[in-house]
Amino acid sequence: MTRVLCRLAGQWQDDWPATDRGLHYGDGLFETMRLSAGRIPLWPLHQARLQAGITALRFPSATMDDVLQALETLPESQRLDRYSAVKLLLSRGTGPRGYAIPEPTAINLQLHLFDAPQWRWSGLSAECPGLTIGVNPVRLGRQPRLAGLKHLNRLEQVLARAEFQPGWDESLMLDDQEQVIEGCYSNLIIRRGGQWLTPSLATSGVNGVVRQWLLQQLDVTVTGLSLDDIKQADALFMSNSLMGIVPVARMDTTSYAPTSETLDVMRALQTRLESLF
Amino acid sequence: MTRVLCRLAGQWQDDWPATDRGLHYGDGLFETMRLSAGRIPLWPLHQARLQAGITALRFPSATMDDVLQALETLPESQRLDRYSAVKLLLSRGTGPRGYAIPEPTAINLQLHLFDAPQWRWSGLSAECPGLTIGVNPVRLGRQPRLAGLKHLNRLEQVLARAEFQPGWDESLMLDDQEQVIEGCYSNLIIRRGGQWLTPSLATSGVNGVVRQWLLQQLDVTVTGLSLDDIKQADALFMSNSLMGIVPVARMDTTSYAPTSETLDVMRALQTRLESLF
Repeated sequence: MTRVLCRLAGQWQDDWPATDRGLHYGDGLFETMRLSAGRIPLWPLHQARLQAGITALRFPSATMDDVLQALETLPESQRLDRYSAVKLLLSRGTGPRGYAIPEPTAINLQLHLFDAPQWRWSGLSAECPGLTIGVNPVRLGRQPRLAGLKHLNRLEQVLARAEFQPGWDESLMLDDQEQVIEGCYSNLIIRRGGQWLTPSLATSGVNGVVRQWLLQQLDVTVTGLSLDDIKQADALFMSNSLMGIVPVARMDTTSYAPTSETLDVMRALQTRLESLF
Repeated sequence: MTRVLCRLAGQWQDDWPATDRGLHYGDGLFETMRLSAGRIPLWPLHQARLQAGITALRFPSATMDDVLQALETLPESQRLDRYSAVKLLLSRGTGPRGYAIPEPTAINLQLHLFDAPQWRWSGLSAECPGLTIGVNPVRLGRQPRLAGLKHLNRLEQVLARAEFQPGWDESLMLDDQEQVIEGCYSNLIIRRGGQWLTPSLATSGVNGVVRQWLLQQLDVTVTGLSLDDIKQADALFMSNSLMGIVPVARMDTTSYAPTSETLDVMRALQTRLESLF
């Protein structure tokens, strides 16, 4: 059961304009969020990332107020409490042809309401103790001005997703200097030598909300990581807003057998995350 | 006078779907083309670039047939011969949420009909013998899988356009290794030491149709170019489909005073280009 609601320049409407800059240039942002009884428990983290994007893309300063008003004035028949997830998409609206930012700008906004999948760790079993992943052949370009943001230029992810081999649940994405950055649709964290480590997202990648939440809960070192660092890790976990935190059982020819202590730490965090919803 | 026509999965319609992958991921391509009496004189070059994009993005093999059929079956009241330019936008259509390519794929297509501006060289005068440009602070990320293509992920150009200083007509874009690649909305070619040189687009940039046409008319060396190479050039020209070929008078603190021989060669090519329309 899925429902799309559009709010164009402050008015709820059914259709999306063909001249929208989100379509023509990817000039926009999005957030995919789990809901709980109509609330967005991790909203502060989603909001912070969205605000970082609004600032980096030079959206109008009133954009966040527009977003908050939209969430509060949803048509009665489409209330958030009927769904368990929402994708919020924000574009710089319509304007004359060309890259120049229109003045004034009237933001367009879309809410895609849907039912979230099960937290992914819940679906694992003794026979299938974690994800099977590979190394994606698509390399991420480096763009510090967009790094960390969840913007609408996602062709690298579309190309990367099309490279998945049979049996892969996810894949590691490296940048063009062979640094490991993230998964195709998730972030990663490793346990190695008694430390928690996650890649720096200074030049590419999406700063996931569950990644940020983990950085608040655990003592994690943010650093450069090579593929060898990942292969030599004692444990590897992937995370995103919909699947939560989930262990990797196998990456390419490397198998991971995390200690029960490491698994217990992460399982406890996953349980704490679920308890927010 | 502007008109937008949408063709969704083969049917002419008025609106664009909110769930289109062009909007959500920039999963599509576009071409901006000058018209002449309803024809597209440089169509073979536009078609070749579009086909390169269709192949690189793994669009269905029948996509080009869809495009040709759309151009041939335009509603009578919106014939191409009433306009002097058209922007063709192509997306991978709608599908389930997520980056995976939908199977089957039904392409969405949009024609944006408008009146082209004057060829830009025509507007120059003795007092204003060429463009004034600067060096853009935004650097292009390198992505060989998308280089050369006119795809819908154009946030770098939006950010770059917002960095224009007062008086700039265009700006040079360098990649993250400080190689000069292109303008924000055009390509470049220089005259230096008796040679024509233009940057390689192997890792970033858009392979413009007028650039390709110039490569057919002139003996041009495609090579890496630094900002020093540009500053030490005898002449600098920018090109795109709408403005044609146009000299640069000033780049930052560097002034260009091309020899009359160099100007004559390029003016003759601009005249030849105009004669196609």
